[in-house]
Formats: sequence, C-alpha cells, structure tokens
Amino acid sequence: MRLDLGYDGAGFAGWARQPGLRTVQGTLEEALGLLWREPVQLIVAGRTDAGVHARHQVCHADIPPDSWEASAATLVRRLAGLLPGDVRVHAAAAAPTGFDARFAALSRTYAYRVRDDPGLADPLERHAVLAVPQRLDLEAMASASRLLTGEHDFAAYCRRREGATTVRRLLRLEWERDVAQRAVATVQADAFCHSMVRALVGALLAVGAGRRPPQWPAEVLARGLRDSAVSVAPAHGLVLEHVEYPPDAELAQRVRIARQVRTLPPRF
Amino acid sequence: MRLDLGYDGAGFAGWARQPGLRTVQGTLEEALGLLWREPVQLIVAGRTDAGVHARHQVCHADIPPDSWEASAATLVRRLAGLLPGDVRVHAAAAAPTGFDARFAALSRTYAYRVRDDPGLADPLERHAVLAVPQRLDLEAMASASRLLTGEHDFAAYCRRREGATTVRRLLRLEWERDVAQRAVATVQADAFCHSMVRALVGALLAVGAGRRPPQWPAEVLARGLRDSAVSVAPAHGLVLEHVEYPPDAELAQRVRIARQVRTLPPRF
Repeated sequence: MRLDLGYDGAGFAGWARQPGLRTVQGTLEEALGLLWREPVQLIVAGRTDAGVHARHQVCHADIPPDSWEASAATLVRRLAGLLPGDVRVHAAAAAPTGFDARFAALSRTYAYRVRDDPGLADPLERHAVLAVPQRLDLEAMASASRLLTGEHDFAAYCRRREGATTVRRLLRLEWERDVAQRAVATVQADAFCHSMVRALVGALLAVGAGRRPPQWPAEVLARGLRDSAVSVAPAHGLVLEHVEYPPDAELAQRVRIARQVRTLPPRF
Repeated sequence: MRLDLGYDGAGFAGWARQPGLRTVQGTLEEALGLLWREPVQLIVAGRTDAGVHARHQVCHADIPPDSWEASAATLVRRLAGLLPGDVRVHAAAAAPTGFDARFAALSRTYAYRVRDDPGLADPLERHAVLAVPQRLDLEAMASASRLLTGEHDFAAYCRRREGATTVRRLLRLEWERDVAQRAVATVQADAFCHSMVRALVGALLAVGAGRRPPQWPAEVLARGLRDSAVSVAPAHGLVLEHVEYPPDAELAQRVRIARQVRTLPPRF
C-alpha cells in the first residue's frame, strides 16, 4: 500500500516513531492499527525532523491482501475521521510491484519560506514561515546557492552518523519571491542527511542578511567540517513539498541503486 | 493615525476590548500605550467576533502630533517587536482629514473558506479553513446566494440588538473554487451586523450539502426571524480581507451618511 499524506509538523516530534513522544509515524500507525486490528509498519520517503511540515509525503506498508481489499475504497475518508487535524492522508492505493517509498524515490523537494518584511507579515502564515527582521538580498543568496549544487560530501551541513555517507546530489537550490512576496528556497536532492536543508538555509540566510559573503557557504562545504558559525534554520519554515519516483518499470532498478552506499565519483 | 493590520483570530476573544479577555483591540492598545506612555483608543472598521481572522483590518486613533511625529518612521518595525506573533501592523500613516475607520468605510469584504474533500485537505491550512466531510454543490450555493444580495432587513441573519437596525446592503455574495480547490465565499456589504456572514454561510452550506433547496436561505430572509435550522458557521473559516474607503475628498460626506441609522427605502 502507498499512502500520500500531509501534516503540520508543529505538534509532532518528527516523523519517526519514538517511545513516549507524539510522532507522525506513531499517530498514523496507530490509526491504521485501529482500522485493521493488526500492527502496521510504515516506511517513509522523507524522515522529517521535529517541527518540519509536509505538504506531500509518501510512505508504504505491507498489508495482508484481505485487509487492503476490505478497506481500500473508504480508507481516505475513514482515516480523516480517525486522525487528528494535523495529519491528513490524501490518497491510499495499491503500490506497484517493486515500490519502496524510501529507496525507490528519485528525489525529495523541500521549500523553506521566509518573511523578511514585518509590514507584509500575515499572522495566519506564521506557523510555516520564518520571520526575519530585515529584507534579504535574494540575489546574493542565489549566487551562494549556485556554488552548492551538484554531488558533494555534505559533511559540513550534516549531523554525522557512524558508518553513514554524507555524499548527496543537490539537484536544485533556488531562491525566488512568491506571489505573497515571501523569500522561498526550493531545495531538491536525491536524498538529504539529517538537518541538511536547514543548515544550508541557515548559511544562506547569513549571506542574505549581509553577515557573510556569497562564497562563504561553499567554503564551509569544501572544508567538510561543521562550522559553528552556521546556524541551523528553525524547523517551522520547512515543508516537504514533493517526492519523485521513476516509472513503475524502473522501480526495482532504482531501489538497487539507492540501497548502495553513496561514494564520491572518481576525480579526473 | 490610520493603522492597517492583520491577525490570527484563534487566540483572541474577538476585536473588541473586554475586561479579563485577550482581545485584538486590548493587545494593540497596550502595545501602543507602551510606546507612547499614554492611553490610546482605537476605532475599527470591522469588529470581528471571537476566532475570526483578519488579513486586512483598518483602525484609527487620535494621537497627539508630538507622539506621532516622534515615532511615525519606525512604528511598524517597533510594533513588530512589541506585539505577539498573532497580530501584525502592516502600515501606520497619518490619516487624511475626516477619516474614520468605522464610519468612512464604504464596504467590508470577508472570505469564508471551506475544504470539502478530505483527500485534498492541507493540515497547514486547517486553522483558517472549515473542513466538511462531503463535496459541496457550489452551483446550488451560487443560485441561493444570488437571491440574497441587495438591500434587505437581515434580521433573520443577525443577532438582534435593541435600537439597532438590521438593514444592510449586501453588495456581493459569490462562491468559487480557488487554485487549491477550496470552496470560497466572497461576501461584501456596506456593513455587517453581528454574526451575519457566518449565519449566511451556515444557511448556504445546508444548500451545498443538499439538505435544503436553493431558495431556502431567501425564504428565511423574507420571514425576518431567526430560524433555528440555520447553523452559524464556525468562526475559524472567516477572514476579513478588505475594507474600502472613498477618495479623501469624500470622506466627510461618507461619515455623515453612515452615521444615520439605516432604514429601508420607501417601496413603490
């Protein structure tokens, strides 16, 4: 089964189930468990941190065919009745053969939104938009961002985990003003390591505020070490907007590739 | 002084100051009082009820010229620092001669937003959008709405107050789907009486859900009595979006007209 869903991250200690904490995974697995009267284990595309939102998240679970067939037609509506208001399942479907919400994903796309003019601030948006006191220099931030895209070891922007690679392919990192005049970063990568989007945004906000030159975030990247001058941007400005998958026929191959530990390509 | 502002109504017992309750007026007057060290009394365009939001509200206050001149240039920024996150002043300006936020207004425009498909619900929007379980028939609601526009005695849709007229000119009451597929009512009138927008929306939701025929809300209007079958729609779906004023030269005349108690025009 593939589930597409969205959530307001404010009330959750992130996606991943943790004992004694309210998490998206725990909340959703509990609701599904009530429906099917058997435990369900969800695998997710993007393990969002505490406070991070999702407008379009994807997860999957292996479900006995009987349970699935009995509830498929009414699942979205019944989950809307069972789930709290801060998480909503948009679609539930039989997943194609070879589908894996995590390893079959080609990329994840996040948006980070910043309101940099108090005269334009809309209090109704404040839970999902970072407010900063001064106008950001979006051109400087865009220049800095262009130096970060491509395949790199993002160790300087990752919380290190033993035995895990920090090599990622950053496909897109762009800043623009949306119709409501907010500064919005669109950040797309094959995958992200822990706190990577928020650390990148934090470095770029320092550029936008004029505290650092545009080449600084790339210099931090090249040093390969976390820099205490990089502030990880607050979680509430970040929204997982999209997860991309290949055509069904290429799912199995994609899973094989993604399961391999990423290494830097040979240099010429 | 004219202030333009927005707020998230969820945490407020409405606009109007009330002892012991957190209100928008009380919060804003307190912040201005701190800045100027003298009490300030605000007059507002739309006295929103508890839980109702405003994206663009307007109020005015009479301020000693010295206080105004000393703080005009930095007022918006300083208020952003003093005010809680759920209210933001967008602009502060010297009001033109004859300006009165309440009586000079030509009209108030509200939006009421409804999400009528749980598969499309975005948890991040839930604080300002009403969720209903079934798809609404927007065409039936639009037909019903057309029968309500114009100048009428809206007693059936108002909470009655001793000595106050309930005659209003409903300039616009339209339903459409926005880009996010929400059902949105745009409701514009010269003025509204207490709970009028929400009572009208409540009657129209009964039409949209197929529980009442399209002519029913107009029949209720014609009876001139509150009908217990009309449920007042929840406050959180309602946003004051716009207040319209005449050109500066016509302000004084508009104030004279609006101060007169409204009466039904003679019938021919």
